Amino acid sequence: MYFASDNSGPMHPAVAQAMMASDTGFHPSYGTDPIMDSVRAQIHEIFEAPEAAVYLVATGTAANALALATLAQPWETVFCTPLAHINVDECHAPEFYTGGAKLSLVGDGDKMSADQLRARIESWTKGDVHTSQRGPVQLTQVTEMGRIYSLDELHALTGIAREYGLPTFMDGARFANALVALDCTPAEITWKAGIDALSLGGTKNGCAGVEAVIFFDPKHAWEFELRRKRGAHLFSKHRYLSAQMQGYLDGGIWLEAARAANANAARLASGLHDVPALEFVQEPQANMIFATLPRHQHQRLRDAGAIYGLWGEIEGDPDERLMMRLVCDWSITHEMIDEFLALAKG
Amino acid sequence: MYFASDNSGPMHPAVAQAMMASDTGFHPSYGTDPIMDSVRAQIHEIFEAPEAAVYLVATGTAANALALATLAQPWETVFCTPLAHINVDECHAPEFYTGGAKLSLVGDGDKMSADQLRARIESWTKGDVHTSQRGPVQLTQVTEMGRIYSLDELHALTGIAREYGLPTFMDGARFANALVALDCTPAEITWKAGIDALSLGGTKNGCAGVEAVIFFDPKHAWEFELRRKRGAHLFSKHRYLSAQMQGYLDGGIWLEAARAANANAARLASGLHDVPALEFVQEPQANMIFATLPRHQHQRLRDAGAIYGLWGEIEGDPDERLMMRLVCDWSITHEMIDEFLALAKG
Amino acid sequence: MYFASDNSGPMHPAVAQAMMASDTGFHPSYGTDPIMDSVRAQIHEIFEAPEAAVYLVATGTAANALALATLAQPWETVFCTPLAHINVDECHAPEFYTGGAKLSLVGDGDKMSADQLRARIESWTKGDVHTSQRGPVQLTQVTEMGRIYSLDELHALTGIAREYGLPTFMDGARFANALVALDCTPAEITWKAGIDALSLGGTKNGCAGVEAVIFFDPKHAWEFELRRKRGAHLFSKHRYLSAQMQGYLDGGIWLEAARAANANAARLASGLHDVPALEFVQEPQANMIFATLPRHQHQRLRDAGAIYGLWGEIEGDPDERLMMRLVCDWSITHEMIDEFLALAKG
Amino acid sequence: MYFASDNSGPMHPAVAQAMMASDTGFHPSYGTDPIMDSVRAQIHEIFEAPEAAVYLVATGTAANALALATLAQPWETVFCTPLAHINVDECHAPEFYTGGAKLSLVGDGDKMSADQLRARIESWTKGDVHTSQRGPVQLTQVTEMGRIYSLDELHALTGIAREYGLPTFMDGARFANALVALDCTPAEITWKAGIDALSLGGTKNGCAGVEAVIFFDPKHAWEFELRRKRGAHLFSKHRYLSAQMQGYLDGGIWLEAARAANANAARLASGLHDVPALEFVQEPQANMIFATLPRHQHQRLRDAGAIYGLWGEIEGDPDERLMMRLVCDWSITHEMIDEFLALAKG
Repeated sequence: MYFASDNSGPMHPAVAQAMMASDTGFHPSYGTDPIMDSVRAQIHEIFEAPEAAVYLVATGTAANALALATLAQPWETVFCTPLAHINVDECHAPEFYTGGAKLSLVGDGDKMSADQLRARIESWTKGDVHTSQRGPVQLTQVTEMGRIYSLDELHALTGIAREYGLPTFMDGARFANALVALDCTPAEITWKAGIDALSLGGTKNGCAGVEAVIFFDPKHAWEFELRRKRGAHLFSKHRYLSAQMQGYLDGGIWLEAARAANANAARLASGLHDVPALEFVQEPQANMIFATLPRHQHQRLRDAGAIYGLWGEIEGDPDERLMMRLVCDWSITHEMIDEFLALAKG
Repeated sequence: MYFASDNSGPMHPAVAQAMMASDTGFHPSYGTDPIMDSVRAQIHEIFEAPEAAVYLVATGTAANALALATLAQPWETVFCTPLAHINVDECHAPEFYTGGAKLSLVGDGDKMSADQLRARIESWTKGDVHTSQRGPVQLTQVTEMGRIYSLDELHALTGIAREYGLPTFMDGARFANALVALDCTPAEITWKAGIDALSLGGTKNGCAGVEAVIFFDPKHAWEFELRRKRGAHLFSKHRYLSAQMQGYLDGGIWLEAARAANANAARLASGLHDVPALEFVQEPQANMIFATLPRHQHQRLRDAGAIYGLWGEIEGDPDERLMMRLVCDWSITHEMIDEFLALAKG
Repeated sequence: MYFASDNSGPMHPAVAQAMMASDTGFHPSYGTDPIMDSVRAQIHEIFEAPEAAVYLVATGTAANALALATLAQPWETVFCTPLAHINVDECHAPEFYTGGAKLSLVGDGDKMSADQLRARIESWTKGDVHTSQRGPVQLTQVTEMGRIYSLDELHALTGIAREYGLPTFMDGARFANALVALDCTPAEITWKAGIDALSLGGTKNGCAGVEAVIFFDPKHAWEFELRRKRGAHLFSKHRYLSAQMQGYLDGGIWLEAARAANANAARLASGLHDVPALEFVQEPQANMIFATLPRHQHQRLRDAGAIYGLWGEIEGDPDERLMMRLVCDWSITHEMIDEFLALAKG
Repeated sequence: MYFASDNSGPMHPAVAQAMMASDTGFHPSYGTDPIMDSVRAQIHEIFEAPEAAVYLVATGTAANALALATLAQPWETVFCTPLAHINVDECHAPEFYTGGAKLSLVGDGDKMSADQLRARIESWTKGDVHTSQRGPVQLTQVTEMGRIYSLDELHALTGIAREYGLPTFMDGARFANALVALDCTPAEITWKAGIDALSLGGTKNGCAGVEAVIFFDPKHAWEFELRRKRGAHLFSKHRYLSAQMQGYLDGGIWLEAARAANANAARLASGLHDVPALEFVQEPQANMIFATLPRHQHQRLRDAGAIYGLWGEIEGDPDERLMMRLVCDWSITHEMIDEFLALAKG
């Protein structure tokens, strides 16, 4: 019963197969492998963006930090939410890669509203040499709390960014989960919605470790290549990144895996509605569930072998409610879900 | 006929097998996987260093830059050769990760002598706030020109570093190739020879992309962990790095692969002695051959499909001698070598 | 009628005289001048801290950024208020000098409470490699809103820092103004109250451009010297910094100037109590007054030549209340104050 | 007898007078003072460059590091000589401010030739993501060994830079000394000779601490302002920088002081030709003399109170020749020179 994260499961068989298929003979190194050419063409087609610059790195933090460093000057501030991965989970990688850019927090949770964004941008006076200069707007889709920006919300936020001349970056570590939930096209949720750059997650959705960074305007291409190499993120045997991404995208495996993950979470959530002690923090929208239980219930679940995210200490007042995070990837089985539900209800 | 680099071949079957064997079920993430525990124990045993801090990253540049950043303050200078990978092949990753440390070049090629090192250290006055402060000594084993530091040479160099209180770091991208060529133990060539930290290469010797960073004194452990995460080099699905290293070390695959690579280069070099137009730059010591040929011979080899490193333009004076680099990994076949030799002699 | 800032007035005559007295003959450079020896001894005596490391730089931002960089690792977070000068007025100098440390904002204004500090420290989990690591606590005395931390408040805040093993840094751009307002000794308000490092402002209180950075524990001395030089803040003709600080401290000029500044602000505030439209944001405690007036009053004052800080646009709804900042240094004359008061009341 | 450096003497009386004249009343801060407007106009006229962006900082290292950071990307390399101040005397300020740019050393001394520059540029392959990217060419005028680039030499070097599309920066810490020695106009020796940016030294030639940074193309203006503030080099009481530069330039004081300094060095050199044991390293061209003497002579001079730069330890083989540096600023008196000459000859 492993619901701790979607970074703990195996590769999707199609991804593993593509990686192994690439594991023969000699390939040109450092991103010049023919598989990468194929991946680039795949992404151009999937995103209806034939000019986009496309790069692969192995970690989501690298994708985020390198993309932001390309979009933000060191004296600029990135607008993001307090719960953004770049703010709380990357040990200052964004600050490191940007050379000291600051994060200006918008709202008080995992999502920002248009009004909040506008107010935060306005909080920094344009052209004042003493303060942070206004920089990129960063949005996470799916958010760190498992929520999804609607197309309308995206358009409103990117509209404000455009009004102020600020670039936009989407952290898409769980992009596929949002895409299938919204049931729209990749273009509609990104550049058609005003997004300038995207990290397209593979790792959490069936890959071993690969993320694509996509700049819809290729003007940043060469700078990004230099930043990737300087950051030590350019793989010599790059084909192993290319092959993962190829296997992930080919035949829509990425969408299939995301649909499976979301469906797993929906099945789990549906069952949890029958657990009287459990209160949902919000209705799940993708593959993550946030809910609260009294501590004694957590103790019981833990003792029975359930593994998931817990906010707070496992020891303490037995009646205190603690928040839990349950994450499903495509590989979670119905048996595992049902076993957990039986336990939770028990 | 692919002799361009040892970063172009496939995984050793044992490494691929280990990676696939790990590709099942749920593993704790970010380096807490049980396979990593096993890798750590393997390295402790192999290096007779039970206290050593051991970490995995995916690229050699990451291993070098993170290790140096841990050993060098931003105002210190790293002593290395002009041909060192950290100087010419890493797009300022060392400068980036150290926060602006400088590289002080020692000697004029791929190896430094004890006298050269001492003179270069002395060129920076200790305690002068205006200048570079003396920092780590970096040695590459096998060097970028395919040569090997003998144990005596290592002891002499690290002795000087110790005399000045400077830490030593070995870039071991081709460590196994040196080890089997010197026929000594891993401990003898590292900490027993005065080396404080090592990057133990896997990528060029049968892995897809993994390097171990080993600090023989674990005092740097936590700082390195923070630097790795901040550099975006901590893998969430870390098991795929662990598994590669496990398959690489188990049963001495790493030594077997290095012996095969060196033997391939020896076979190739032996045959090349019969090519009249060819002049060796030096006798090969590991898995790389540096030699010169007239340009018209390079043109002929290129036209016939041979791929290797070439210093200079392929067009020009047909009689001008140009340097070539031929690299063999374990996967180069005797047929490929013999085909190239027949072509070169023809 | 110039109340815009205390960085606009002339040098105190004693400071100017000391600077000119030093302007003769040859002095050793880069901080080795005998006047600096005298300054160091003065500060040791004034602060009852004979071991303290003492350095001079020319700007307050340099003092803050260099001191914080010495106290904080790049992966650590500095705890400060949202209105802290280091957060809003230094164009990312702290992020630049620390190599990417983050500022964690405490409270919602210019002062933090002990409870707020503790909660913010607790918000970062100790030992979690993914997040910001806990770093220095920064306090501004006098705060950016003209308020003063009492000795009790200081002890409470530094007590929490010590509990968590975190160093403390006081931005003392207006240190003298706080000192004379609290009527305590320099030691009582700093190291005896748990402060580890202080920037002792001169520029805003009668100097041309000089701030002392004081580490009460000299273990950081050499690192700070290297950081100062690397930051290009080590003056070659250092005597001109030394002489300013000497003239500032000799005979208690710094206290005299601060008393004059605070008295000027008190006189101004006293008169402003008779301006019906004016509302104080809070009672002034040192040399700065924050108050609100309707916009039409600001327009009238501006038109009459009054210069001061204004939050908001000068054009707009005439009845909207806008905040103003009035700052007095020692050189503001009673005539200027009375002229402004007459105007404001008029 | 103080010949250690031109950073040890007093202000020129005209500079001191200008500074004191500015020390009255209230001036807008942070570079918006009217004196700065006047300085900008002066420099526009003197350099026949009405569009140039002009900024003041307090140290030469700040001028160099900020200018280079504005011209160089972090992955680019600066071409300079091994003896360049930016390479050996700035404790990595250039690396810090550029975010990790590397210095590629050209030639083996204080001057580079056109052929050496071309070869060094060619040593980095254009468009190779692995290596340093080609960046600015930095020239020091007067060089660190007291030599001067002729106009022909400058044109040849900047011509190569232009050919490769690289910007050029002149470290003019002793710019006035070169200018009067070459007897040409400021424009001829800078932008008319292909120089893009200049640091115009004041500190070593009669000021307390001020250098102008001049970009002949103002496209870099705003970026430089942000970098200056972020580097903590923007003075709040900026008028004290402005006034120094105003007093320095007004009425040609800067040229007069440089002529006096050069003439002092010529008088000293002329006399030293009569010291049999002394050998000039080269004929002095500006205000610095490099020569050798046996150690026992140095001991005698030191014992008699002469202060100058010495390469090597004062204790050792009495007959070993050691290099000395004698520097004259405008304030060195004929008496001091003659006293030293009598001593040296005695």
